[in-house]
Amino acid sequence: MTFDEAQQLDATDALAFARERFRLPEGVIYLDGNSLGALPAAAPTALANTAERQWGEDLIASWNKHGWIGWPTRIAAKLAPIVGARPSELLIADSTSVCLFKLLAAAARARPGRKTIVTQKRNFPTDLYVAQGLADMLGLTLRAVEPDEVIGAIDADTAAVTLTHVDYRGGSAHDMRAVNDAARDAGALVVWDLSHSAGAIELDLNASGAELAVGCGYKYLNGGPGAPAFIYIAQALQDELSNPLQGWMGHADPFAFDDDYRPAEGMLKFLTGTPSILALAALDAGLATFEGIAMRDLAAKSRSLSRLFIDEVEARCGSEVRLASPRDPMHRGSHVVFAHPEGYAVMQALIARGVIGDFRAPDLMRFGFAPLYNSHAEIVRAAEILAAILTTRNWDQPRFKARAKVT
Amino acid sequence: MTFDEAQQLDATDALAFARERFRLPEGVIYLDGNSLGALPAAAPTALANTAERQWGEDLIASWNKHGWIGWPTRIAAKLAPIVGARPSELLIADSTSVCLFKLLAAAARARPGRKTIVTQKRNFPTDLYVAQGLADMLGLTLRAVEPDEVIGAIDADTAAVTLTHVDYRGGSAHDMRAVNDAARDAGALVVWDLSHSAGAIELDLNASGAELAVGCGYKYLNGGPGAPAFIYIAQALQDELSNPLQGWMGHADPFAFDDDYRPAEGMLKFLTGTPSILALAALDAGLATFEGIAMRDLAAKSRSLSRLFIDEVEARCGSEVRLASPRDPMHRGSHVVFAHPEGYAVMQALIARGVIGDFRAPDLMRFGFAPLYNSHAEIVRAAEILAAILTTRNWDQPRFKARAKVT
Repeated sequence: MTFDEAQQLDATDALAFARERFRLPEGVIYLDGNSLGALPAAAPTALANTAERQWGEDLIASWNKHGWIGWPTRIAAKLAPIVGARPSELLIADSTSVCLFKLLAAAARARPGRKTIVTQKRNFPTDLYVAQGLADMLGLTLRAVEPDEVIGAIDADTAAVTLTHVDYRGGSAHDMRAVNDAARDAGALVVWDLSHSAGAIELDLNASGAELAVGCGYKYLNGGPGAPAFIYIAQALQDELSNPLQGWMGHADPFAFDDDYRPAEGMLKFLTGTPSILALAALDAGLATFEGIAMRDLAAKSRSLSRLFIDEVEARCGSEVRLASPRDPMHRGSHVVFAHPEGYAVMQALIARGVIGDFRAPDLMRFGFAPLYNSHAEIVRAAEILAAILTTRNWDQPRFKARAKVT
Repeated sequence: MTFDEAQQLDATDALAFARERFRLPEGVIYLDGNSLGALPAAAPTALANTAERQWGEDLIASWNKHGWIGWPTRIAAKLAPIVGARPSELLIADSTSVCLFKLLAAAARARPGRKTIVTQKRNFPTDLYVAQGLADMLGLTLRAVEPDEVIGAIDADTAAVTLTHVDYRGGSAHDMRAVNDAARDAGALVVWDLSHSAGAIELDLNASGAELAVGCGYKYLNGGPGAPAFIYIAQALQDELSNPLQGWMGHADPFAFDDDYRPAEGMLKFLTGTPSILALAALDAGLATFEGIAMRDLAAKSRSLSRLFIDEVEARCGSEVRLASPRDPMHRGSHVVFAHPEGYAVMQALIARGVIGDFRAPDLMRFGFAPLYNSHAEIVRAAEILAAILTTRNWDQPRFKARAKVT
């Protein structure tokens, strides 16, 4: 596909208008929204308003006057259409790692006597570390198996299974329904990490029988660096589970200042300490970039962008690179990786030319496609630039420091 | 003291210049910095810079280019003179509640076989909830005794003691050294919650033999609503303790993406997930309001303000109110409470007149004095306004909606 043809494709893109919801630097093709989503155009004003008008002017009264106390659930509700859940099943809190600890510990407590947590090898590292830390604390065993052995590893001793839905490295996606069914049959609970799928592909937590999930606010959800995370608990499980990190924000009546803990109803009991209101304000702006977007359209554009990138890279670079992600977009998320023996240096050369992806050892160049702001024209231009680097083999000393021009 | 005399006192106040470091609304006497510190004048620019220039322009590269990865320790180092610790003993992370969970769990693990956590009744609620949640999880007993019984309750079965240094309600301060000595003699560890003392009074964690502490970033430290918290671990204990909430940010090499957890050196291993960079930027501005301030001067001003308030209120309101804090400022923090049977309504009347304190059940009106921005003139004016409300007994239907005028 030529650059002009890609531009014609963009002219008919139903989501093209959403790019205006972001501020992206000139001359950059940003293909790393899977690591850190771009700045929503509304975020600076939201931050300034929260800091100057609310914190600065109304001070402590803002907790009521501006409804800060309700932000963790109000903002979480915006996630409902993005992940396919009810608003009352969602909460914004802490970091992904801390949220995972909460849900895994709650799941283990809800399945007393069972001694195993099942996960996969090469899961996102923090998920493995959190699960191992919890297992050490509770005298459980963490069993990490190959991805295709997970379902077979779930048995009557399994308290919980924890998996990242879309692999952070290669992008492959687990079959959520199949894992949920196997776990339910065995009486185990599954905690999904949606960090690399929420906001990137179509999710229907309710329909797929998902009971527990956490996810990251700063990737495809555009909530800003280190944004708070989210927790999902299916309605049917909410009464049964308790939060091991119990704190005053999860109390039924935080401002009664009781000595005894009485958990709040529903999701609120999974709050612990006071959340950062500034971080929540930015995440709110990030989630607002999804307003009015049908997730079916978003997923379709994700597939269109990633397919085009694979086609264009393979057509232009041939056997120089090897696709290390599933080719079928129905089996992966919204990022793809290509392997190249000099992948690190090639990625540096790409970045020097304004194409921002990232590198994962040993040889993987990773490219993420954010359907809200990436265009087909960018994809073709990025593939051209990659081909030029590989053809001239000048990745050691990039000659062209000029940044990419998309238009 | 008259208002004019108070203004003369302010004219010789060595810390008067620091008020310029804050943006405070006109016509408000803000005596609730112990709940939510005021907005640092530098915070809006810091937030805008972090969001627009760093996140927006440099995107993912900011983690290195702007040193985001080092912010939790870089910013923590600014706390060193405020709490009397070495920079290498401090870390910014999570919320106070989550940090307390980490340290209490680490302490319990470092004292295997001991089955009790000692605390005081009417401790700040979240501290009790966190400790109870941990005790339930690990099969320990949380023993809550009267404040003056804590030292006597520490014995050979005590794994950890957790206390809030300055009581959030009445303001009374524990004798930090005495508790530390008793715990050390018994082989137990103490986790201090410094939320109501850090930035308000003089602290010397090292000299008082403190081994573990957490504290709040959004009260006297002015870090913004729900600001991240801090953790202190004395150098000698750092190797011995491990973080039960282990996550990738606490790994020795987070970007190696190893399946196995290897804790980072020193304080870094107490990080868990990715911290909010926006929240850290605001906390950084909050801690910068202490730059060049000798904590001895700050503590002296705290005593001067709180003494003056007690004197003026008692002189003007007589037996209408009852001081429910220690009279001696050496035995309390930087806030005081007065009891009044109609305390809630009286506080509402005060707030309607621009004097912002808060109310704690059943009958306590709480007033906090932030030495960096409160003045003696404000204290006299606040006492005058309180006396006027009590004298006219018109707290049910405040007639004067006009805000206070300080000058």
